[in-house]
Amino acid sequence: MKEFELIRHFFSEQVIKRKDVVLGIGDDCAIVSPAERQNIAITTDTLVAGVHFPHDTSARAIGHKSIAVNLSDLAAMGAEPSWLSLAITMPEVDLKWIEEFCLGVFELCEYYNVQLIGGDTTQGPLSITVTAQGLVPINKHLTRSGAKAGDWIYVTGEVGDAALALKHILHQVNVAPEYRESVQRSLDFPTPRILAGQALRGYASAAIDLSDGIISDLGHLCTASQVGANIILDHLPISQALRATVGMEKAFEMALTGGDDYELLFTVSEDNKVGIETALANTSNTITCIGQINRSEKITTTLNRKAVALKTKSFEHFSSNKE
Amino acid sequence: MKEFELIRHFFSEQVIKRKDVVLGIGDDCAIVSPAERQNIAITTDTLVAGVHFPHDTSARAIGHKSIAVNLSDLAAMGAEPSWLSLAITMPEVDLKWIEEFCLGVFELCEYYNVQLIGGDTTQGPLSITVTAQGLVPINKHLTRSGAKAGDWIYVTGEVGDAALALKHILHQVNVAPEYRESVQRSLDFPTPRILAGQALRGYASAAIDLSDGIISDLGHLCTASQVGANIILDHLPISQALRATVGMEKAFEMALTGGDDYELLFTVSEDNKVGIETALANTSNTITCIGQINRSEKITTTLNRKAVALKTKSFEHFSSNKE
Repeated sequence: MKEFELIRHFFSEQVIKRKDVVLGIGDDCAIVSPAERQNIAITTDTLVAGVHFPHDTSARAIGHKSIAVNLSDLAAMGAEPSWLSLAITMPEVDLKWIEEFCLGVFELCEYYNVQLIGGDTTQGPLSITVTAQGLVPINKHLTRSGAKAGDWIYVTGEVGDAALALKHILHQVNVAPEYRESVQRSLDFPTPRILAGQALRGYASAAIDLSDGIISDLGHLCTASQVGANIILDHLPISQALRATVGMEKAFEMALTGGDDYELLFTVSEDNKVGIETALANTSNTITCIGQINRSEKITTTLNRKAVALKTKSFEHFSSNKE
Repeated sequence: MKEFELIRHFFSEQVIKRKDVVLGIGDDCAIVSPAERQNIAITTDTLVAGVHFPHDTSARAIGHKSIAVNLSDLAAMGAEPSWLSLAITMPEVDLKWIEEFCLGVFELCEYYNVQLIGGDTTQGPLSITVTAQGLVPINKHLTRSGAKAGDWIYVTGEVGDAALALKHILHQVNVAPEYRESVQRSLDFPTPRILAGQALRGYASAAIDLSDGIISDLGHLCTASQVGANIILDHLPISQALRATVGMEKAFEMALTGGDDYELLFTVSEDNKVGIETALANTSNTITCIGQINRSEKITTTLNRKAVALKTKSFEHFSSNKE
């Protein structure tokens, strides 16, 4: 029991103290006081050891990632992150592990001015559930459901490197030493695209974050918007590391179906194309136009302006969503 | 993957649709629109199979309990429950189990007008993490830290039956057949004291919910309030079942140290004694005065007006909090 008290002590040591937190960690609930004319975006994600991260992932990376994947969901709604609740289940109390884990958590909290307001620590197989909340002006949140035929499809950053890192860990590919660090970083320390998400408000017609891969997540967006899409493979933002390691064709496949990118995918009408490129440039996020929404009910891909059929698992996943 | 879609379908089938939920299950985040002049109370609790409930607990009871323990935390703050996020980790998708689990969840949601706004379903050893949110008028929330010397200590309902049920399951005691159902119900289907909690606003000086037992939780309240307390054992609200099964002395011990009661323990000044008894009577909650706050730094107990030393594990727990 004393050890669990020590854990609480670690979590109380955070630097961020937001003015809208009336009561933080330590009572039966936290109490927060949301600003007027703001709605609240709420998301929950669980990471399970051996399922969502390899068992030997560093505690700091687990801490970072468990927060980042939730902030990424807030980013996809255009919300400004504000409060976090953290539930950790762990087999035994390992204070060194907790300290490293907290490092990963609090680095992100401090960067984005998010306060940890509560949580629970329980004994059991390692898993982490985070509930993240953010503020978004009334009627300004982004959804998956607003894409229209003719809208352009964009992604932030590069896609496929996290999947590459996982394949390297599983000895399915061998990433050359000069690429390893940056590739591993993509998997362990994804950057939630918070500022990009906020810059999209008023410009993007729909948005989603890339957790399961472009085909799968664009599939969710198309289902919610009742549209189809074509992806121009030539335009996919693929890193030199991915191309050099697996070749161009496999790189396309991994960029489309690899998960864990945590980039934003969003759609923009022709009228807002210039506006969004300027707005995003101001946040120092790179964005790439990778295709266009259409009236079909499927996702197609083209290469050199010719249709290319890609057979991947995620296509099936998408089709199962269409029922 | 299809099966996880089916789970989402179950969770979308709820009856409650609150007007303040702008966007429910199905996007990257839920969006809620809190009423003006209300703060938000937030709590997170995890239940792990084999730790927080026996492995053979019914799915319906697990569903009920995972929600009830969180609503109980909201009750202790005087909040009105509003939104729930639910993260389930389960070894394999068992749709029959999920259906029963949802029954337990939605019974409580419907009774208290709470909407499930999101969640996550992952594969792994069985555990459930719920984040519950509630509304509480600005500056009206209850805390653990307001108790003053001279305040009276009350509890709602009866205490110790959940601990008795657990001992029966573990074959440490044998509860007579006529008591079994009601005793088992205390453990599996605790009632969060929502209306009582709201009735306490403006009357109670401090409040906490009983999850770890009176000594432990009163200990937290005393630590937060920097006071001590005396409990009058003769006054403890103990059921006929508990008394008949283990005898009076053991019944006192179990009432003081048994967990899982989810009753409210609260403190009231002499001036508010009549007011609170009237307010609580209107919510049809029974309450019992079980002792008084004092200036000591410890928790003592008396029986027939004589001091009684109780040696229990939870006293140690309390002492470890005093550092």
